[in-house]
Amino acid sequence: MYSELKEKVLEANLKLPRHGLVTFTWGNVSEIDRASGILAIKPSGVEYDQMTANDIVIVDLDGELVDGRLNPSSDTATHIEIYKAFPEVGGVVHTHSRNATIWAQAGLDIPALGTTHADYFYGDIPCTRRLAKNEITQDYEKNTGLVIVEEFALRHINPMSVPSVIVAGHAPFSWGKDAGDAVHNAVVLEEVAAMAIATRSLNSGIKIQQELSDKHYLRKHGANAYYGQH
Amino acid sequence: MYSELKEKVLEANLKLPRHGLVTFTWGNVSEIDRASGILAIKPSGVEYDQMTANDIVIVDLDGELVDGRLNPSSDTATHIEIYKAFPEVGGVVHTHSRNATIWAQAGLDIPALGTTHADYFYGDIPCTRRLAKNEITQDYEKNTGLVIVEEFALRHINPMSVPSVIVAGHAPFSWGKDAGDAVHNAVVLEEVAAMAIATRSLNSGIKIQQELSDKHYLRKHGANAYYGQH
Amino acid sequence: MYSELKEKVLEANLKLPRHGLVTFTWGNVSEIDRASGILAIKPSGVEYDQMTANDIVIVDLDGELVDGRLNPSSDTATHIEIYKAFPEVGGVVHTHSRNATIWAQAGLDIPALGTTHADYFYGDIPCTRRLAKNEITQDYEKNTGLVIVEEFALRHINPMSVPSVIVAGHAPFSWGKDAGDAVHNAVVLEEVAAMAIATRSLNSGIKIQQELSDKHYLRKHGANAYYGQH
Amino acid sequence: MYSELKEKVLEANLKLPRHGLVTFTWGNVSEIDRASGILAIKPSGVEYDQMTANDIVIVDLDGELVDGRLNPSSDTATHIEIYKAFPEVGGVVHTHSRNATIWAQAGLDIPALGTTHADYFYGDIPCTRRLAKNEITQDYEKNTGLVIVEEFALRHINPMSVPSVIVAGHAPFSWGKDAGDAVHNAVVLEEVAAMAIATRSLNSGIKIQQELSDKHYLRKHGANAYYGQH
Repeated sequence: MYSELKEKVLEANLKLPRHGLVTFTWGNVSEIDRASGILAIKPSGVEYDQMTANDIVIVDLDGELVDGRLNPSSDTATHIEIYKAFPEVGGVVHTHSRNATIWAQAGLDIPALGTTHADYFYGDIPCTRRLAKNEITQDYEKNTGLVIVEEFALRHINPMSVPSVIVAGHAPFSWGKDAGDAVHNAVVLEEVAAMAIATRSLNSGIKIQQELSDKHYLRKHGANAYYGQH
Repeated sequence: MYSELKEKVLEANLKLPRHGLVTFTWGNVSEIDRASGILAIKPSGVEYDQMTANDIVIVDLDGELVDGRLNPSSDTATHIEIYKAFPEVGGVVHTHSRNATIWAQAGLDIPALGTTHADYFYGDIPCTRRLAKNEITQDYEKNTGLVIVEEFALRHINPMSVPSVIVAGHAPFSWGKDAGDAVHNAVVLEEVAAMAIATRSLNSGIKIQQELSDKHYLRKHGANAYYGQH
Repeated sequence: MYSELKEKVLEANLKLPRHGLVTFTWGNVSEIDRASGILAIKPSGVEYDQMTANDIVIVDLDGELVDGRLNPSSDTATHIEIYKAFPEVGGVVHTHSRNATIWAQAGLDIPALGTTHADYFYGDIPCTRRLAKNEITQDYEKNTGLVIVEEFALRHINPMSVPSVIVAGHAPFSWGKDAGDAVHNAVVLEEVAAMAIATRSLNSGIKIQQELSDKHYLRKHGANAYYGQH
Repeated sequence: MYSELKEKVLEANLKLPRHGLVTFTWGNVSEIDRASGILAIKPSGVEYDQMTANDIVIVDLDGELVDGRLNPSSDTATHIEIYKAFPEVGGVVHTHSRNATIWAQAGLDIPALGTTHADYFYGDIPCTRRLAKNEITQDYEKNTGLVIVEEFALRHINPMSVPSVIVAGHAPFSWGKDAGDAVHNAVVLEEVAAMAIATRSLNSGIKIQQELSDKHYLRKHGANAYYGQH
């Protein structure tokens, strides 16, 4: 049962070490089945090279265990808030990939500085506010999700146009139409985060032209996209 | 038909991931057959590890499809303008390689700072001007090529002596006598771009001596070259 | 005799090149058997790819050779002082891993800047004071251990809550409940050291929130930990 | 004839790509046979993965071809000046390894900042003066060697205590008792060069303590060395 979803989520998790996004067991990927309202997620603290589809845990949107013999990722409650607030999201990934985490630690948005960024992210990648003390001591992982959702609402950002966020003092979350797409966006996030650090060291005030951002985002996304084989 | 050219262009494209110049399907290489006026180019959005010679697309210098069942790279029109303006160019490559792209995002020329640079590039590697809004909204890829050509004309740079450019806010293009040579230059570009970032952080005003640039460029290129086995 | 301990220490030493923490023969790992008061440690100056369990050297807490035909690591006396002062430590590792060594050379604590750090280290990772001239000329390796112990005592840091130190002008030492755990902490140290360099370049005054540090450290460590499968 | 020396020099050259010190055909290693006054060196512009012992070129100390069917490295005259001036040197290597080259381009000595440096280099690694115009236009490679020798003489540096130099605007040369030892030093040079860039970015005025430099250099080198198995 859920074996197809578990396989997909296993495969997406295994892409994290392949793309150099994780150290040890850090990082986790989930995918939701919107029809049945359940999600499959990596177990907590299990090594990637020993993980099997059977280790993937199934929970519902209240975080209740549906299937599996291991504890789900400790970040499950964050994934759930993202799925609940962003109905088009089908997969979520959390990593501590080096360069995106550097921006999170610095507490700064990752600025849109070039077309590599614009091909995937329509505008700056937001950094959340810091969580308040009580948001940390109680229901921390759920509140991490809520502060992400709050940031997109306050800034009127469409989460499908900017499919990543960095949480202040912590690390990035990315998402996509499914688990594989979420990991794809996490790889791009890490690359644009690395480029942005050095770009700003060379030219501290630089930004991408708005019309160039529009062009690159829209030639890959939306009704008139002409990149790729569609 | 065109099978030899397609094989060469496939092989040159496959060198991009081997040299660490691309993420996912980013990047594209073409080669022109000057006699018949057609060029072979990577298809748009196809994975490198699944690409075969049959996927390579043949177009003419008007961008019209001559042979192939896939869409050509979305950057085809840029390649065409380079071939049309620079008659000695036989191959063109576009990547978003990290360090060259950093300079493009910063909107700055890559300065000639040492002999590694001078062995391949005779002087600074120019960064184009930003495209105007109307150049972006209409015929963007063609205008990207035109702005590259304009930059070399304005600065009186011989494109065979400086076989790379960075497009402001975007990323690099490199070229050479054929597709393999273009990729070779793209690898060197990425290396000198990386070195230049850190060199300037250690010593912000430094430049290479003109006579050292002359010496290194000319010992590898031109009539009196004495590097290698020629 | 001691064959099980030697195998464990060999295995832990071999993890150093696998994790990219060492160049050539640099670095060494030991593990102590508290019951018998002896420790197993890497021999000095032996290549990792030629090392066997038989090459591992057994010494007592006075540094006297107990078993083995090679010289123990020249840093053995430092390991011994750590074992003598920190009774919960079961394994010690010394490397010159690039980013942690950069902080040591700079003579600065590695500041706690995010949850990656807080998951393993409860507060800044201390940099020792410089050794005095006479501490260097006589019993240098023993004094390196003593200055590490002094730093933790002066700052009232629990060595099991901050299982790494950087020695001013030199390089890091890490420890853990056994040799494998010590190496695990050395890998994390290197990652947080790398992140901290770039974070400070983006935002020079930033620190982690105390309550976020508390939360992350305590969700993985201590009585109420809920990370992983325990 | 010379087959043993050619094999040694081939093997030392092949270590350059294995240690990540070279791109394409860049870099070259030689070893001298002091008894017969000849040296074996890499041919110019030959790919590492196609090089055989038969491709290695034998020249005498006047640069005259003794054996071999290919052109020797274009940097042969630099190697010869180093051998002529430094009688204890048995092997020489030239690379454009990224971080050492960055210091060369910046025109700055690589400062001694920690024990990683002090284990191999007794004091700063000198950057030569710039060559004068006439030194570049005539006998450039020979003059590169002479300016290296001049720098060590002017600063009273023992070349066996500081077995590397960086040539202003160009790149590093390293040496050792034989070709393999020279490459070993080139690997260390690259590592300390990388560490020094970031160390200075964290703490611009820092230097190693003289007594710590003394200690680390002398525990590995000289009459009372106690590192390793000697």
